[in-house]
Amino acid sequence: MQTSFLRQQQDKLIIEKAPVFEPLDPPCRLLCGPGPCNPHPRVLRALSMQEIGHLDSAFLHIMEEIKILLRYTWQTKNEFTIPVSGTGSAAMEACVCNLLEPGDKFLVGCNGYFGPRLVEMGQRYGASVVSMHKPWGQVFSVEELEENIRKHRPKVLALIHAETSTGACQPLKEAADICHHYDCLLVADTVTSISGVPLHIDQWNIDAAYAGSQKCLSCPPGIAPLTFGPRALEKLRKRRSKVKNWYLDMNLIASYLTSNGNSNRSYHHTAPINMCYGIREALALVAEEGLEQRWSRHERNAMHFWKGLKELGLTCLVPQQYRLPSLTTIQVPPGIRATAVTSHLLEKFGIEIGNGLGELQGKVWRVGLMGYNSREEIVQTLLVALRTALLEQGYSSIRPSFM
Amino acid sequence: MQTSFLRQQQDKLIIEKAPVFEPLDPPCRLLCGPGPCNPHPRVLRALSMQEIGHLDSAFLHIMEEIKILLRYTWQTKNEFTIPVSGTGSAAMEACVCNLLEPGDKFLVGCNGYFGPRLVEMGQRYGASVVSMHKPWGQVFSVEELEENIRKHRPKVLALIHAETSTGACQPLKEAADICHHYDCLLVADTVTSISGVPLHIDQWNIDAAYAGSQKCLSCPPGIAPLTFGPRALEKLRKRRSKVKNWYLDMNLIASYLTSNGNSNRSYHHTAPINMCYGIREALALVAEEGLEQRWSRHERNAMHFWKGLKELGLTCLVPQQYRLPSLTTIQVPPGIRATAVTSHLLEKFGIEIGNGLGELQGKVWRVGLMGYNSREEIVQTLLVALRTALLEQGYSSIRPSFM
Repeated sequence: MQTSFLRQQQDKLIIEKAPVFEPLDPPCRLLCGPGPCNPHPRVLRALSMQEIGHLDSAFLHIMEEIKILLRYTWQTKNEFTIPVSGTGSAAMEACVCNLLEPGDKFLVGCNGYFGPRLVEMGQRYGASVVSMHKPWGQVFSVEELEENIRKHRPKVLALIHAETSTGACQPLKEAADICHHYDCLLVADTVTSISGVPLHIDQWNIDAAYAGSQKCLSCPPGIAPLTFGPRALEKLRKRRSKVKNWYLDMNLIASYLTSNGNSNRSYHHTAPINMCYGIREALALVAEEGLEQRWSRHERNAMHFWKGLKELGLTCLVPQQYRLPSLTTIQVPPGIRATAVTSHLLEKFGIEIGNGLGELQGKVWRVGLMGYNSREEIVQTLLVALRTALLEQGYSSIRPSFM
Repeated sequence: MQTSFLRQQQDKLIIEKAPVFEPLDPPCRLLCGPGPCNPHPRVLRALSMQEIGHLDSAFLHIMEEIKILLRYTWQTKNEFTIPVSGTGSAAMEACVCNLLEPGDKFLVGCNGYFGPRLVEMGQRYGASVVSMHKPWGQVFSVEELEENIRKHRPKVLALIHAETSTGACQPLKEAADICHHYDCLLVADTVTSISGVPLHIDQWNIDAAYAGSQKCLSCPPGIAPLTFGPRALEKLRKRRSKVKNWYLDMNLIASYLTSNGNSNRSYHHTAPINMCYGIREALALVAEEGLEQRWSRHERNAMHFWKGLKELGLTCLVPQQYRLPSLTTIQVPPGIRATAVTSHLLEKFGIEIGNGLGELQGKVWRVGLMGYNSREEIVQTLLVALRTALLEQGYSSIRPSFM
């Protein structure tokens, strides 16, 4: 009883033999690189919960919970605080394509890998981009920020709060006041700081921020927090040109995500339902622990790790003054091949740490102690595994007290 | 033992009280709307498998499996056949922003909701867009396509293979030959057809296609198949301008996803690891069943459903000749309020079917029998539930034989 239409459409298969693979069985890894880290078990369970529709009131209820939990986590009362349907880079691009119009002056702090990515995005959308530079691992002083803003008079300044390539934490507390004095918006990349490092969107007057799910939130990648404050929303409303990027046009998304009640919700794209379950659970875990307790836990475990590194005779790239508790860059000692150590850790211990990125390639290792993975037993495991891998490579400057 | 830096950054919390919600517990739904449908249980289990890094060779191996399985499912030998890190709309936008340059003539077939979306995207990226129209629910004839291509001489023609808003299946078999005769690329929207309706990318010479995961593949939304054939890749290589959209720039993604071996892989963005697990498992299920068997199953169950609708005195919007087995649009009978029936189904039976979209709002219901949900017992359940809901609304033209 085949319809004639379908019979007519059914051509000869050009790949007749269906591929057959072993059952899916990803290996067990302790993920202590720059992210993803190991998701919390409750988050993994949430991912596999049964499906509901993206326009179901039960889903809209979950979306409201996500927004409320995100506001707590970021310490903001911004109504427009949402999960973007993509990874952290999509949320980064959402800031660039919504808050800049062609010709707008865009100042970007480049002190690692992710500033230049913002520069590249800004240029693609036709902004007039100026980058200010600091050596990788350093941060900008208030004076440097003010000097650059006064000189270039940008419409938007973007700073990387937590630079995943270097492990440096850019102080943001005074930056916004300078920006606003010169009528400039401040956008902050909080991918590797959200929920792991003190961060106060409203207290610090940050106008827009984005983050990733796979760092200190301990959720898999694939969904990304974004918040726009009143100044950012005003800029969006007053745009003279349409946002080029349809998928990330926050004007369109606002009408689906932020209208009150269900009646006015208009369909934009299908939300990634199960990733929403995941981030909902990840954020609930932040709220259950308490934000300040979570920041302290990250700091405590990082300091134990840094102490252990010192005992191994290893040096961190970033001075402790600006060092991220969530991500530590360790300088590779002379005579040691960086990738030999990372391979040893992966192959012998199932532990993933990160190699250097960009200009720090071969010069540092990147170790993340993020979210669920910021635990004392992981610090201990990492230190003994690292010591073993280093000794294997002929490393010899381990302090006697630790031997 | 707090560092002075972190102490200094720690401001007063403006939201002190952490939000407390009930445990996450999405309700049980039978999803027979236009998508998402219920994922296969094996896909849900895959989503919660343990995390590995996006640069781990074990993950790159999974990515290769996905590409091979996608090629089988789409019947294409295109090397560039990948999952996009977003929903179907992101993959749609990937076609528009990569294959069109400012000023390029872009012809779009508009016979439902999704053609106009392509028009909107094309305009945002500066293409010179021409739309050709047919009433919703109808399809374009070969003659109409040829006439429009000859008249407008577009660089790219986009057609919706399976229009999710109307349930119509656009024949594509002859379209590409006409396109190529006039040096035009053919892009096909296969969101609601992939793995559910006969579709032969290579046999039909389709140059680029995109799909969604949450329809006949029975995977949650959040990852989206995309394939570019040789002509599309040539167009991409020969672009005079950079792709405006950084996240979806397939030149950048190609260097991460399609290089041979691991050594040349360059980091672009963090892949949505667990969604990749999900689509890997969903595609493995397609291969295990066999593509032609899967197409037949969708057709068989759809025809049972259509027979049941006829016995209920209901009429389908689309003539059987072009009717999608994966999605049926049922005309709302006179005197019946469409949303009263969908609400009844949801509230009394936990069954979701879709309301009409756009100009079909209030005029049709949309019923999906997709992937895992294309089963005889679901057809029977749907028919009795629909009958009950209709009777509740005072509907009276059910055939005696069915009473």
